Amino acid sequence: MWYETGQNIRVRISGSSHGENVAVEIEGLPAGFAVNTEELQRFLLRRAPGRSPLTSARREGDVPVFETGLNCGVTDGGVLRAVIPNTSQRSSDYEKIADTPRPSHADLTAWLKYGGKMDMRGGGPFSGRMTAPLCVAGGIALQMLRRMGVFAGAHLYSVGDAEDDPFPLYPQEELFMTVSSKEIPVINDDAGEKMRMEILAAGSEGDSVGGTVECAVTGIPAGVGGPLFQGLEGDISRAVFGIPGVRGVEFGDGFRISAMRGSRSNDPIIIRDGRLCTETNRSGGIQGGITNGMPVVFRVAFRPTPSISRPQRTVSLSRMEQTEISIGGRHDPCIAVRAVPVVEAAAAIVILDSIYGEWEWNLLR
Amino acid sequence: MWYETGQNIRVRISGSSHGENVAVEIEGLPAGFAVNTEELQRFLLRRAPGRSPLTSARREGDVPVFETGLNCGVTDGGVLRAVIPNTSQRSSDYEKIADTPRPSHADLTAWLKYGGKMDMRGGGPFSGRMTAPLCVAGGIALQMLRRMGVFAGAHLYSVGDAEDDPFPLYPQEELFMTVSSKEIPVINDDAGEKMRMEILAAGSEGDSVGGTVECAVTGIPAGVGGPLFQGLEGDISRAVFGIPGVRGVEFGDGFRISAMRGSRSNDPIIIRDGRLCTETNRSGGIQGGITNGMPVVFRVAFRPTPSISRPQRTVSLSRMEQTEISIGGRHDPCIAVRAVPVVEAAAAIVILDSIYGEWEWNLLR
Amino acid sequence: MWYETGQNIRVRISGSSHGENVAVEIEGLPAGFAVNTEELQRFLLRRAPGRSPLTSARREGDVPVFETGLNCGVTDGGVLRAVIPNTSQRSSDYEKIADTPRPSHADLTAWLKYGGKMDMRGGGPFSGRMTAPLCVAGGIALQMLRRMGVFAGAHLYSVGDAEDDPFPLYPQEELFMTVSSKEIPVINDDAGEKMRMEILAAGSEGDSVGGTVECAVTGIPAGVGGPLFQGLEGDISRAVFGIPGVRGVEFGDGFRISAMRGSRSNDPIIIRDGRLCTETNRSGGIQGGITNGMPVVFRVAFRPTPSISRPQRTVSLSRMEQTEISIGGRHDPCIAVRAVPVVEAAAAIVILDSIYGEWEWNLLR
Amino acid sequence: MWYETGQNIRVRISGSSHGENVAVEIEGLPAGFAVNTEELQRFLLRRAPGRSPLTSARREGDVPVFETGLNCGVTDGGVLRAVIPNTSQRSSDYEKIADTPRPSHADLTAWLKYGGKMDMRGGGPFSGRMTAPLCVAGGIALQMLRRMGVFAGAHLYSVGDAEDDPFPLYPQEELFMTVSSKEIPVINDDAGEKMRMEILAAGSEGDSVGGTVECAVTGIPAGVGGPLFQGLEGDISRAVFGIPGVRGVEFGDGFRISAMRGSRSNDPIIIRDGRLCTETNRSGGIQGGITNGMPVVFRVAFRPTPSISRPQRTVSLSRMEQTEISIGGRHDPCIAVRAVPVVEAAAAIVILDSIYGEWEWNLLR
Repeated sequence: MWYETGQNIRVRISGSSHGENVAVEIEGLPAGFAVNTEELQRFLLRRAPGRSPLTSARREGDVPVFETGLNCGVTDGGVLRAVIPNTSQRSSDYEKIADTPRPSHADLTAWLKYGGKMDMRGGGPFSGRMTAPLCVAGGIALQMLRRMGVFAGAHLYSVGDAEDDPFPLYPQEELFMTVSSKEIPVINDDAGEKMRMEILAAGSEGDSVGGTVECAVTGIPAGVGGPLFQGLEGDISRAVFGIPGVRGVEFGDGFRISAMRGSRSNDPIIIRDGRLCTETNRSGGIQGGITNGMPVVFRVAFRPTPSISRPQRTVSLSRMEQTEISIGGRHDPCIAVRAVPVVEAAAAIVILDSIYGEWEWNLLR
Repeated sequence: MWYETGQNIRVRISGSSHGENVAVEIEGLPAGFAVNTEELQRFLLRRAPGRSPLTSARREGDVPVFETGLNCGVTDGGVLRAVIPNTSQRSSDYEKIADTPRPSHADLTAWLKYGGKMDMRGGGPFSGRMTAPLCVAGGIALQMLRRMGVFAGAHLYSVGDAEDDPFPLYPQEELFMTVSSKEIPVINDDAGEKMRMEILAAGSEGDSVGGTVECAVTGIPAGVGGPLFQGLEGDISRAVFGIPGVRGVEFGDGFRISAMRGSRSNDPIIIRDGRLCTETNRSGGIQGGITNGMPVVFRVAFRPTPSISRPQRTVSLSRMEQTEISIGGRHDPCIAVRAVPVVEAAAAIVILDSIYGEWEWNLLR
Repeated sequence: MWYETGQNIRVRISGSSHGENVAVEIEGLPAGFAVNTEELQRFLLRRAPGRSPLTSARREGDVPVFETGLNCGVTDGGVLRAVIPNTSQRSSDYEKIADTPRPSHADLTAWLKYGGKMDMRGGGPFSGRMTAPLCVAGGIALQMLRRMGVFAGAHLYSVGDAEDDPFPLYPQEELFMTVSSKEIPVINDDAGEKMRMEILAAGSEGDSVGGTVECAVTGIPAGVGGPLFQGLEGDISRAVFGIPGVRGVEFGDGFRISAMRGSRSNDPIIIRDGRLCTETNRSGGIQGGITNGMPVVFRVAFRPTPSISRPQRTVSLSRMEQTEISIGGRHDPCIAVRAVPVVEAAAAIVILDSIYGEWEWNLLR
Repeated sequence: MWYETGQNIRVRISGSSHGENVAVEIEGLPAGFAVNTEELQRFLLRRAPGRSPLTSARREGDVPVFETGLNCGVTDGGVLRAVIPNTSQRSSDYEKIADTPRPSHADLTAWLKYGGKMDMRGGGPFSGRMTAPLCVAGGIALQMLRRMGVFAGAHLYSVGDAEDDPFPLYPQEELFMTVSSKEIPVINDDAGEKMRMEILAAGSEGDSVGGTVECAVTGIPAGVGGPLFQGLEGDISRAVFGIPGVRGVEFGDGFRISAMRGSRSNDPIIIRDGRLCTETNRSGGIQGGITNGMPVVFRVAFRPTPSISRPQRTVSLSRMEQTEISIGGRHDPCIAVRAVPVVEAAAAIVILDSIYGEWEWNLLR
């Protein structure tokens, strides 16, 4: 049990919200890959707060400093370490809540686990800010995957009751790029408008709202993964549950498939353009834990931001008596919006690890 | 990426459906724990096929033989290895389908991954039969957990459209035992009756149907798990996705929470009987990846059995041309029914590993 | 901490001396490699007891039964499991010593660790018999390595004071084969004769004698391993210390180098036949934890067999009082003799794992 | 294969000699342990260069900055990260050797492995400077072990032909402290004087000399470790071979035992002061991979510093032709001197990890 994921390409996240920085290390990268830092910066901007009225007002540059692993922008074969300084802490926002844990937040469980020794200002290591270094690793993984013909993209699938269109059977890179350039990263802009209304309504009422993100990865060759605990779903879900606020993960038709009959849920095997594939993709590209060559598709459920200004019942830890809390500070009314690139990042990290040493790997060198 | 799960208590599954046996190894158990083999046998019976018209007609004794790790029924501190012989293979059922992979089954992906070298009769290592050894490990883990005051139970939450009542806020061991003794393991027998109808209808039409399982673990102390990739959800989900047929995992209110407002989804912190707890448990007992002392609750989505007798489109691999398949053999119309104890087993294995070396561990010695 | 070694190619040993069998599992092998079982059998014979007056009279066929992982002799991509039945246990030899642990044996430490729960007849899981399954894995690894142009061989370097010649700078496969075919596997037969005398003398006096084994692996490309804890020495030594009776491991000139001056111990870098190499190989082919393309050479120290018939002081555990023990049963007077192929096996397993996914790996498919 | 060691207490080293800093992370420490930073600083000083004519003239403060994991000097339960800035690089010393790899150094192997992408100034991640962060982790581990009654100490056992006395059967903490306070950390000062002469002679001749270090750990309870690959020797040796310059590791009487008879090498089991122990300790406290309660004793062989000013043969990589090199810069004539605390550190890290969750662990909280 570590802050890390992966077998061959290992990614570790460290730091905390109100420490000096947050950081990421990636181990196992081949030497000789030129990282496109401008593109990486654009990817990080998609996650960064403060870009719209929909997100937290906290403004972080989110510019990673590469301490090791890059030599003139090229991977040197050692551990790549990138640090993102924390420049915008406003700790006073949090001090008043040290004694009164926020409901459904890690405040209480961290206090129970660490005996009150952990600095939990800003959420400490449980903060959404930890997804910034995750995106550094994911952004680099995405660049490496693209070199091998693998593309990953995600969109905001739902917010409250508002639902986007699902990805088409074969989503193209253009669609990924179009979606990711929008303020609300959706396929159908009408759905996006409804989502915006939901979010603004929740925010204006001192409340928050949940959402789901759909992610697709195309170009993964067939044969990645394995039976039982080797299944690719297990690795992806473990990484995705590492993102703060995730409450569920489903592949392909997921929970909906559990209400179906087999005659409807099975994906017929067909030959298309001379290649084996399936007519539908209710399995989400994975059968028996192994990719079948179709796009890998999964959805992730995010809870509403637990920090809301509406009064909530909690307990004063010092006095062990019931009290109320109303949380100020800067919080996204809907964390799912900014989570879209984070889900892509998590997926890319796992997929890169899964195909290590296989297939087109030499293209990376 | 292995057939195994766990950090300190490691569980490995091996064998295959039509090999000589299926087996499990558990590493890291303390010496001196007396396994109750009768109780274990009763637990295994809950998973075994052939007990009702609802399940596959294949009949296996499912009697584990302990090769190492038990000395006169007591753990000896070494690797515990249990083998379940395969006594009831009817391979001829499967031979005809070697060339025509079953839709949404591992047939195709295994063929792609292993270049046709893997013996896939009966599903090979992808078979539901692999859950028998998983239940041996899980059954022993359940006994150890109970010694420490931790109880795990599950029920069939839904089949098709029929839905059981959810677990109460604090499910008791008695409820777990009552539910597990039923042919259809549900809380509400009316719901169970509807499920039975769904299953029989699907079976009689040569079809299958999906379902979901809800699992609760009570008595876990607060403080188990950790931030980010250390989160308990990640470990549980990784193990649960190791069960064949799982397409989704959600904790607490899971995907439903993504349609809620924070003011509704947050669990108020209260003092009950002098102890810190939450008034509701929409978080499923885990916040920030760490247990808060409430029951850990999660749900698992199972797809319908992919093997159905209705004709389906597939491809002849040798001729690379389109064909149809109608699958005979013995298959459960709804794998979720027998999956109930399997989900308990997976949960118990992960929880036992998670609390290794902590807390009441000495009770095991 | 497991009974296993390796990162990608993982080898696990299980069973015990007087259980039903000893077994090995290898995980991570590619599908499609045809194992030469006759050659494997010849390799196992080199380790098997009972072949000469120099070794234990216990006679085991040591014929592995492949339970999974081989399909018609070809790896199927799953876990390869081989079992060697125990056919020649004479447990009565050991029963009398259950209460009086043998000095310098695992009897006492196992009793202390496992609270007396472990069946220690024949040494239980600490027995030299556990090296039989290790040799199954090693024998297969050797075959795979040879396909990639990598050869491993070992010889008995010393017994008591008798010392063989060291390997030449570039040992050839022919030398490995010649040495391995001898009853005393040495380069210089005069040295072998002295060793035989030492061993027979020790045995006839109810005593035992220690020895060292030198191993060389040729054909490993440069660049395998890494800095610090990634160093190849660490992985090899961890595996080699897994062999019962090993008390020391050194690479290249090892302990002798610690008495040298740098001007003598450094290996000059030269160009030979147009390729970079070193003029001498005091580093044993590894510098900074990474192979330099020269043969990897290391030596292993084995203690004398602790089981001797001479009376020794020990303690009765039940009465906690001083007593004496004189050990009967069948024991090699010098375990280093039969350890020669075991050291090769351990080296091959580590090297195969180290070059996973690199370089000529595709030749295995 | 990582820059890291350990199962539950994991230690990772990063950075490089001429980067901005070197760093260490320790994962798995319990919350609530107060680190004595003054004592830690004294420990680090023992390794630091520039303190005597015997060591490199490079002067580093070696003052660790704790970025995470300590809250007011007390462990907070998260990852402890300490950074030591590099303040004294003189890169020009190294630039001229980029094209001409130093014999028996990592220059050549790193160039081969990383395709010339790795910044190898000062030895890059292969530098002896990497042992500074290792000592930070080790120093903290030593403090934790002492709280549990476990003490580790080491001394310079030999330099060239000069040999110190071995540790007594039961070395006391006072001895460890006395030895560690000396400029040449030996038991017998006459031996120390001879070593000083050896080192000064080598240095004045533009040469270097090897040495060995003996380490003892007392107070480890019986029962730590396990059979085969679980053996404590394997874990210790893997960590120790992670120290740059180590060429051999032996436990107890190690290589010398391989020339003995069993009747001499076996450690008689006796009752002393009512407790089971052994009369001698030729096994080095470990039998069958498991501690027997006696002090764990091992020796480590260090090669001479490869960087010497005497001319050596090497190759110009750019011109691929033979040339000579004479290495300037600041180098210890005998790295074994400063390696003494490093060996203690490596031992402490492994032992702390090995006893995780066992026994007196609660004392740490």
